Amino acid sequence: MDFIKHIEPPNQAQKQKTKAYLDSLVKPIGSLGRLEDYAIKISGITGEMHNDLSKKAIVVFGADNGVWDEAITPVPQSVTDTQMKNMIKGVAGVSVLARQADIDLKIVNIGVKEKLKFDGIIDANLMRGTNNIALGPAMTVETAKKAIEYGFNMAGKLKNEGYQLLGAGEMGICNTTTSACMLCAFSGKTPDEIAGMGAGIDSDHFDKKVATIKKALLVNHPNPKDPLDVVSKVGGLDIAAMAGLYLGGAFNKIPTVIDGYISIIAALLAYKLNPLVKDYIFASHKSAERGYVTARKQIGLKPMFDLKMRLGEGSGCPFAFYALEASQRIIGDMVTFKDGDVDDHDYIDIRKMENK
Amino acid sequence: MDFIKHIEPPNQAQKQKTKAYLDSLVKPIGSLGRLEDYAIKISGITGEMHNDLSKKAIVVFGADNGVWDEAITPVPQSVTDTQMKNMIKGVAGVSVLARQADIDLKIVNIGVKEKLKFDGIIDANLMRGTNNIALGPAMTVETAKKAIEYGFNMAGKLKNEGYQLLGAGEMGICNTTTSACMLCAFSGKTPDEIAGMGAGIDSDHFDKKVATIKKALLVNHPNPKDPLDVVSKVGGLDIAAMAGLYLGGAFNKIPTVIDGYISIIAALLAYKLNPLVKDYIFASHKSAERGYVTARKQIGLKPMFDLKMRLGEGSGCPFAFYALEASQRIIGDMVTFKDGDVDDHDYIDIRKMENK
Repeated sequence: MDFIKHIEPPNQAQKQKTKAYLDSLVKPIGSLGRLEDYAIKISGITGEMHNDLSKKAIVVFGADNGVWDEAITPVPQSVTDTQMKNMIKGVAGVSVLARQADIDLKIVNIGVKEKLKFDGIIDANLMRGTNNIALGPAMTVETAKKAIEYGFNMAGKLKNEGYQLLGAGEMGICNTTTSACMLCAFSGKTPDEIAGMGAGIDSDHFDKKVATIKKALLVNHPNPKDPLDVVSKVGGLDIAAMAGLYLGGAFNKIPTVIDGYISIIAALLAYKLNPLVKDYIFASHKSAERGYVTARKQIGLKPMFDLKMRLGEGSGCPFAFYALEASQRIIGDMVTFKDGDVDDHDYIDIRKMENK
Repeated sequence: MDFIKHIEPPNQAQKQKTKAYLDSLVKPIGSLGRLEDYAIKISGITGEMHNDLSKKAIVVFGADNGVWDEAITPVPQSVTDTQMKNMIKGVAGVSVLARQADIDLKIVNIGVKEKLKFDGIIDANLMRGTNNIALGPAMTVETAKKAIEYGFNMAGKLKNEGYQLLGAGEMGICNTTTSACMLCAFSGKTPDEIAGMGAGIDSDHFDKKVATIKKALLVNHPNPKDPLDVVSKVGGLDIAAMAGLYLGGAFNKIPTVIDGYISIIAALLAYKLNPLVKDYIFASHKSAERGYVTARKQIGLKPMFDLKMRLGEGSGCPFAFYALEASQRIIGDMVTFKDGDVDDHDYIDIRKMENK
C-alpha cells in the first residue's frame, strides 16, 4: 500500500498560468463559472494548459455484500450479476448514457457471489461476496488492501492504454448499507441520521436497515482513524476498489470522476488514505440518497449537477465528462480580447471593469 | 399576435404512456430522476415516446439598449456587434460550447445600433438600438410585436428545416438592466431587491444602475397585467424576440431551452403572453445573476444545472441539450425488466419494492 504515499500535489504554477489565460479570453472574468474552475483543476492534475480528454472510460466494480442475509431489502442478490451482464449488453442505464458520449465501459467482477462467467466482464474476483457485517468483519484487511490495489493498478493500466478521463461506478445489492456504515464510522453521525432509502424500500425494510447498520457498528467497532479498518470491517469490495481507482488516477495524473452515493463514500475512503486525492477527483451529481451531502462535505467537494438521480452504476459520470470536456473547449478554442477584435480602447475599459 | 393563442396543451395521454414505459425499464422506479421527467415532458410536447433530438440550434438575438447612455456600465456599446462577429467566427463562449455538441448557431441582428454587415449574421434589424428607457419607452408596442413575431416565425422556419431542439441566447450591452426593469414590473419587487452585477461592475456603476432602473419604472409606469406594455416600455428587442422563439417552439411542438438571466426574463414574458409555453420550455442553468431565482419561480421552472455561469450568449443551452438527449437514450436504448433477463421471481420482487 506504499504506492498511496506517492501521489504528488497538483502543479500550482500551471494552475496560475491557466487562470491568467482564462482571464484573457473574450468574456467577463469568471463568467464561465465552474467550467473555468475545472479547466484550472485539470491543468493542475496534468501540468498542461490544454488537455485532450476524448478517450474516456467508466470502471464499474461489481460485488456482493453478505449483509444481504439480514433481509434488509426485497431485491434478490442475483440482480448484482444480472445487471452487470446488462451493462455489457449495452441495455443498462450506465450503458446507454456512456454510449451517448463514446465512453468505454469496463465491468469488473471484484467480489460477486454467483459464479460469473460472461464475455466482456473482467474477472478479478477476490471473494464470493463479503461476510455479513452484522456478525463480524466484511473481509480481512489483506483482502481490502488487494481490492484497493486492484483499483489503483487499473487506473495505471488504463493510462497506459491512452485513457485521459476516468469515472468510477458500482453494482452491488446492499451497498447503500455498507456505505452508510462507513459514513457513520468516518463522520461520527448515527445510523438514524445517515441511513437512506437506497433503491427504494418500504418502512419495514428501512427499520431493519437502520437496526442492521447499528448492529454492524456495534459488533465491529470500526476505528475512524484507520480507514483500512473501516472498509474491511463494515465496507465492501466495490467501495475499496473504487477508492483504489481514485488513488490510482491521482498517482497517474488522470482526472477521475465520482458518481453518486456509494462512489462518494469510496472517495471519502480514498481521501482518508491520502487527502491529496481531492485535487484529482470531481464530484459529478448530487445523489438523492440521504447521506450524500455529509460525505461530500467531509471531503470538501461540490457536485456539478443535481438531477435527482439515484441509480448508481456510474450513471452520473457522463454528465461530468461532458462538462470537463467543455472546460477544455473554452481554453482551447476561445480567443483572447486582443485577438478577438475588441479594440484597444474597448479592451482597456473592459479590463478595468473586470478588475474592480 | 393571434398566433400566440394557438399553442396547444401538451399531450397528457402520451405523457402517461411514457411514464408507464419508463417504470418498466431495468432500474428502480424514478432512479434516473429528472432525466425521466424530461423524457415525459418531451413526449408531451411532440406526442411521441421516442424523439430524435440530434438536429439542434441555438438562436442568438443581438440588440442594443438606449439606456447605455445613462453610463451604467464601462463596457462600450460596440461590444454587442463585436461579440456577434466573434460568435460567427467561432471563438466566443457560446460558439465553442455549441461546436462540442454539433449545435448550429443562428446569430440574428434584431436591433444592433451599429451598421452591422457581416457574413453569417442574419439581418432582421427592427431598430438601431432601443430608446433610452430612463427618458421614455424603449420602443413602440408595434415594434415589440414585430420582434416577438420574428422570433415566433424563426421557430417555424427552423422546424421546417428539420431542427428538433432549440435554444435561445442573446447579446446586448445593458440587457441585465432592461431585464431587471421587466422583472420588477412583473414581480412587484423593487430594483434594490432585483438589480445584479451583470458582467461585473463596480459599486458606483451599480448605484447608477439601480437608480436608472427606478427612474425607468417611474417614467414609464409599465402595467404588469399587460406584457406588451412592459416589454415595449422597459424591455429590449433581444428579450422580445427570444420570447417569440419560445412561443414559436411551443406552437410548433419543439422543445426549447432557456439559457440564463436575460433568457429567463424572456421566458417570463412568453409565459405572461401564454402560460401554456411553460410545458414546452426547459431552464438550463441557474444563472449567477441576482434576479434569476425570482424570475424562474414566477414561471415555476427549475434549472438543470448550477455551474455559476453568467456569460449569456446562449452558453448554458448545450448542457441542457446534452441532458435532454440523454433522456431519449434512456427511453430508446434501455431494456425492460422482462427483456433484461431479470427472471420472473426477481421481477415480481423488484416491482413490489418499487411500488411501495
